[in-house]
Amino acid sequence: MSQSNSSASNFRAIDVIRKKRDGIELSRTEIEGLVNAYTQGDIPDYQVSAWLMAVVLRGMTRPETAALTDAMLRSGEVLDLSFLPSRKVDKHSTGGVGDKTSLVLAPLAAAAGVTVPMISGRGLGHTGGTLDKLEAIPGFDVNLSVTEFRRVLEICGCAMIGQTAEIAPADRKLYALRDVTGTVESPYLICASIMSKKLAEGIDALVLDVKTGSGAFMKNEKDAAFLAELMVETGERMGKQVVALITDMDQPLGKMVGNALEVVEVVEILRGEGPEDLRELCDDLAGWMLHLGGASKTVAEGKKLGGQLISSGKALEKFRQMVKLQGGDVRAIDDLKRLPRAQHTMNVPSAKTGYVASMQCEQIGTACVILGGGRERKEDSVDPAVGVVLHKKGGDRVDAGEAIATIHYNAEARGKRASELIGKSFEISDAAPAAKTPLLHRVIGESGETQ
Amino acid sequence: MSQSNSSASNFRAIDVIRKKRDGIELSRTEIEGLVNAYTQGDIPDYQVSAWLMAVVLRGMTRPETAALTDAMLRSGEVLDLSFLPSRKVDKHSTGGVGDKTSLVLAPLAAAAGVTVPMISGRGLGHTGGTLDKLEAIPGFDVNLSVTEFRRVLEICGCAMIGQTAEIAPADRKLYALRDVTGTVESPYLICASIMSKKLAEGIDALVLDVKTGSGAFMKNEKDAAFLAELMVETGERMGKQVVALITDMDQPLGKMVGNALEVVEVVEILRGEGPEDLRELCDDLAGWMLHLGGASKTVAEGKKLGGQLISSGKALEKFRQMVKLQGGDVRAIDDLKRLPRAQHTMNVPSAKTGYVASMQCEQIGTACVILGGGRERKEDSVDPAVGVVLHKKGGDRVDAGEAIATIHYNAEARGKRASELIGKSFEISDAAPAAKTPLLHRVIGESGETQ
Repeated sequence: MSQSNSSASNFRAIDVIRKKRDGIELSRTEIEGLVNAYTQGDIPDYQVSAWLMAVVLRGMTRPETAALTDAMLRSGEVLDLSFLPSRKVDKHSTGGVGDKTSLVLAPLAAAAGVTVPMISGRGLGHTGGTLDKLEAIPGFDVNLSVTEFRRVLEICGCAMIGQTAEIAPADRKLYALRDVTGTVESPYLICASIMSKKLAEGIDALVLDVKTGSGAFMKNEKDAAFLAELMVETGERMGKQVVALITDMDQPLGKMVGNALEVVEVVEILRGEGPEDLRELCDDLAGWMLHLGGASKTVAEGKKLGGQLISSGKALEKFRQMVKLQGGDVRAIDDLKRLPRAQHTMNVPSAKTGYVASMQCEQIGTACVILGGGRERKEDSVDPAVGVVLHKKGGDRVDAGEAIATIHYNAEARGKRASELIGKSFEISDAAPAAKTPLLHRVIGESGETQ
Repeated sequence: MSQSNSSASNFRAIDVIRKKRDGIELSRTEIEGLVNAYTQGDIPDYQVSAWLMAVVLRGMTRPETAALTDAMLRSGEVLDLSFLPSRKVDKHSTGGVGDKTSLVLAPLAAAAGVTVPMISGRGLGHTGGTLDKLEAIPGFDVNLSVTEFRRVLEICGCAMIGQTAEIAPADRKLYALRDVTGTVESPYLICASIMSKKLAEGIDALVLDVKTGSGAFMKNEKDAAFLAELMVETGERMGKQVVALITDMDQPLGKMVGNALEVVEVVEILRGEGPEDLRELCDDLAGWMLHLGGASKTVAEGKKLGGQLISSGKALEKFRQMVKLQGGDVRAIDDLKRLPRAQHTMNVPSAKTGYVASMQCEQIGTACVILGGGRERKEDSVDPAVGVVLHKKGGDRVDAGEAIATIHYNAEARGKRASELIGKSFEISDAAPAAKTPLLHRVIGESGETQ
């Protein structure tokens, strides 16, 4: 085993590892050197994993975090969307259960004249992924080339694709290493991973939805707020407008969890229907997207405009247009019965009479994975049809034997396991719980609230 | 990149990494699992380096340190020397400049009837290595098989060899990884590395010489004492008698630095001559070795007996016997001019008149490396003939222009660079310094002093 040197410079990985180990701030040049050498294969995994662990335990300063984000961003292509005159805005969620807001917001903002070049991920662990949801629409192609992506954006104003090989290759390599070396859980590394990919989209502004609660990666609000501040400041250091909404993920968003089921709920929202909590969060996020996208003077006006675009049917029409341009079968949007449907359903009855005091949100996501609707490993395929429909949520009254949820399944054994897990994930109390936690906890950045 | 599992058990490296990252104590089973899986090649370097960095930054408890030492020890063969009736004692130094005490102590203790099965290392960085010094004796073979090692021990009572492939293979693999991942500097990992190799020698007792000062790896006494306590406790947990002497390495030990030159000084000491500081440290270490080896009731009696074995010539005779049994040319011991000699010498003059206030001990070791007498990389070969003879040490008076040292060199350019470095490493002050630092700072363990 020998120390590897980047041929281009006098960069020595061992020196950068030692400095970070000893809590000394790294220079921009050192961070760039490490990221570039690793992306080019000039330094081995075992040196980078030692460095990553030192970052997890020693942390990073704000300038270091910005330098890491910048180096990862510039490890690949940065989209140039300057041929489009409108402002480019994206939205990113840190991941939750039943969070299908992206599918509502991209067409909604595009209907207001904002360009939304959205590059999303797949579900992993208990959380769902935007790409998996889109692929529940027959024919929908998330693997557009950059040229096709630009074409759809030009025609439609929004397009939703998966990460391409050209975007932030350093992040792909680093994430794979973090995943197997216990170095995922660092706000600095999470920030650099998210922000490098999002800023490579060539956007002007970004709305972040940072989830907190039992179904989020950040279980407590303090950690969520810290990550949010870090991402806002990093984005601002790179000359972008960034705002972060800390939102509740103590229970799934909306009623549907599962890919095709969530598309149903998206269309319901775009029709002006759908569950209240999902509608409320879409309103809040839309307000910010439209405001930062220059479609409204204030966030409040943006929310109002968003509501109008839904009631006029323009947002739904934009969604249909995008689906069509990306190869999807719009008949499945017009007639939701054409979406993939599971062969069987079974109800999960409540064991007692009372009120829903809480639910283990992560377990509901896990139940969907058990049904085949999510993936435990990156290479797993997903069943678009399966999932869970929640009939009761926090604070709701329920009678013994009444259905709290319906399981949509294709395999009997999986259905039973999921049903048991859902049953256990609900806590029913005798008394009605106190006031509900608000969905929107805090806004960080853009003078909502900072640091 | 996928997570690897040891086939034999449900051991998952990622879980052990995460636990250590989060500061949770690992069980003996988890530590064994990691060491065994890594030694067998079942888990990749990049997982182990992340774990090593977590250990560097989180530390280890005493039970964890003992478990790591034990797992590394049992990764290979543990010598069984029970066929020899006498007690087996070894001495180990954490490394310094001009430290040739092992070559004096092994034959001296053997002359007192103690068995010394010494497995040593090579020099690395600014420090010298016992094997390199022994190989300065023409013909001396440090690569004995275990069978030959046992035979020499049986005949002579002492033998000095290099690490074999059978001894603690986990340490060899881990050390190579630590070397390139910034994870050398952890007292817990240093302890496990040293103690696993030493306890694999099948010894009953161990005398540790833990160096502190500008020429040591542990620059300050607090760190040296911490490491010493850790090693003593770890050895005791494994049922061995262990004592640690914290000794001064603010200047080289003795006058000679360089492989053949150090053999000269060893023979001088064995003849009852040689510099006072080296004689004093050999006395202290011999006192403990003979006491723990059962040759004396007290340490003081051991020191006295050691002195007698030198004045009687028995220690030197034992050294000759070992050299002969290991293939060395004893004529080079009887006539020191037969040892390798450099082609040229040059004096390093003092820039001013005054007193030696201090010297940069590490730089003197580095000067020897520059001359070719040490190695910067493991694969470098060494020149046995070159080195430095110090004429002045801390507290000595010196006149301007008077030689403070003589450089023995084979290449002009190297000689000049070494000479400049030696010149700069001496600090000459006008006033005589206060009392010298004692060579022996503290004794830890065996009721000398503990924790």
